[in-house]
Amino acid sequence: MRIFGVDPGSQRTGFGCIETNGSRYKIVISGVLEPPPDIPFSQKLLFIHEGLSDLLTKYRPDVMAIENLFFARNARSALILGHVRGVLILAAAEKKISVSEYSPTEVKRAVVGYGRAEKSQVQQMVMLLLGLEVAPSPLDVSDALGVAICHGNSIGTLGKPEQQSQGSRSWRDYKVKEQSK
Amino acid sequence: MRIFGVDPGSQRTGFGCIETNGSRYKIVISGVLEPPPDIPFSQKLLFIHEGLSDLLTKYRPDVMAIENLFFARNARSALILGHVRGVLILAAAEKKISVSEYSPTEVKRAVVGYGRAEKSQVQQMVMLLLGLEVAPSPLDVSDALGVAICHGNSIGTLGKPEQQSQGSRSWRDYKVKEQSK
Repeated sequence: MRIFGVDPGSQRTGFGCIETNGSRYKIVISGVLEPPPDIPFSQKLLFIHEGLSDLLTKYRPDVMAIENLFFARNARSALILGHVRGVLILAAAEKKISVSEYSPTEVKRAVVGYGRAEKSQVQQMVMLLLGLEVAPSPLDVSDALGVAICHGNSIGTLGKPEQQSQGSRSWRDYKVKEQSK
Repeated sequence: MRIFGVDPGSQRTGFGCIETNGSRYKIVISGVLEPPPDIPFSQKLLFIHEGLSDLLTKYRPDVMAIENLFFARNARSALILGHVRGVLILAAAEKKISVSEYSPTEVKRAVVGYGRAEKSQVQQMVMLLLGLEVAPSPLDVSDALGVAICHGNSIGTLGKPEQQSQGSRSWRDYKVKEQSK
């Protein structure tokens, strides 16, 4: 299964595409969509929408996972972020790619094992889980990879300890082990 | 000049296209984009984007005018509304149609002459200014026509009393006259 994670932002949208066989993760591509800061907002939306559409066409994921943010700093920043999320979700819908949403807390819990983890901890865990030699950067990219892993975790058998037999090595064990390095 | 007004909403987006020669307004088309309530949010965005794209292709306006709302009830409703505005603005940008934004206060001041007017007053004035026999309904439609008129007003010579010679009949006079009927 190929999962495309996105972390939408008003300035910059991180993305990261991963593949999973249910037990391991492999990175396919990651990066940021960052429109020039001096163009009109409508042109930024065009840039982001076209950028994601091209990526979805090229990498053909089975699903897109996106961060769900219902508690913005204020109504104004929520409104602006909403525009960006709108054109991202639209790009997936146009290609008949289903969209799954996860809260930042769910992503942190899935990746680090702790819902209030720092973004830098997510970054470190993403690097370990994907077997990367350097930490994915900027944080928008590691967050995007994190939400993709979160989705893989939520659908894979390893993500749900209650679905595991007592003796098997669970996803959580793996994460704790890596985290203690 | 042909102006396409939109009043975005999470349930229903009103639209209204008008033509102006700088002194009079004429209606071209109006209506609502209302996705089925029981489909996923991503499909609603697809519905709204495709709907507006088709309308812009058919009616070929010179500009799109849209209500600008920076004070939503709360961050959550602002976020949802942002998604809708995002795909609407994108549809215009894709067709190289410029987008002008006006606050509800600007629209009310332009149409009724009073920034705190009720939506029903906007509706009545829109009916009079466009010479309609019945009031445009629902309010999403009259609001959309109102924002289109607001744009026409802001660019036309009649909209700015300071640009008028003292003796001429100003836009404001016209509005006050109609309003007193």
